[in-house]
Amino acid sequence: MFEKDLSLSLLYDIYSPLLSEKKREAFEGYYLSDLSLSEIAQDTGTTRQAVRDLISRTCGELREYEEKLGLLEKRKSLSDLCKKAEASGCDPEILEQIRELL
Amino acid sequence: MFEKDLSLSLLYDIYSPLLSEKKREAFEGYYLSDLSLSEIAQDTGTTRQAVRDLISRTCGELREYEEKLGLLEKRKSLSDLCKKAEASGCDPEILEQIRELL
Repeated sequence: MFEKDLSLSLLYDIYSPLLSEKKREAFEGYYLSDLSLSEIAQDTGTTRQAVRDLISRTCGELREYEEKLGLLEKRKSLSDLCKKAEASGCDPEILEQIRELL
Repeated sequence: MFEKDLSLSLLYDIYSPLLSEKKREAFEGYYLSDLSLSEIAQDTGTTRQAVRDLISRTCGELREYEEKLGLLEKRKSLSDLCKKAEASGCDPEILEQIRELL
C-alpha cells in the first residue's frame, strides 16, 4: 500500500529518537522488518487500518522534521565536502570521524 | 527568575524550528531581547505567570531535543575535529564549509 521510499528509512535513522515508542514499533515492523500491515496489527493488538494511519502519520512527522532541521540534506553535503577534503590531501582518519558525527 | 543559561541560547539556535510560534516569541523576548516576563506578558496579552510557564516548558523542550538528537554536542565535536584537520594541513576553506553545516 505505501511505497517503501528509501529516503524514509534514512530519515528514520536520523529522527527516530523524536518519535513515540508506538510509532517506532509500527515503522520498524513495516519498513525495516518488512512485515505486512495485518501482521503488525496482530502483533500490537490493533486493526490494520489503525496501523496504516499510524505509519502514515509517522512518515509525515519524519518529513516534517527534515523540512525543519534538514539533517539528511546536511549529511549528504557533509559527505560531499569530506570527499573534496580527502582529494585535497586531508587526513582520512579525521574525515572518517567527521562523517560519523552526522 | 530563570538563570539565563547560555547553553539554552545555543540549543535555541539549533532547535527553534521545532518550537511553536508562541514559544519562539516568548523565548526570544526573554533570552534574546532581554525583556522582563511582565513586558512579554503585556506584549502578548497574557499573564506574567503564563509567560513564566511557557518559557519553562520551552527550555524543557529544548533540553529534551538535545538529549534525543545531541546536535549541540555534535557541533562541538565537529569543531574540535575541524581544528585537528586544519592542524594536519587540510584546506581551511573546505573546513569552513564543513563547520557551517552544523
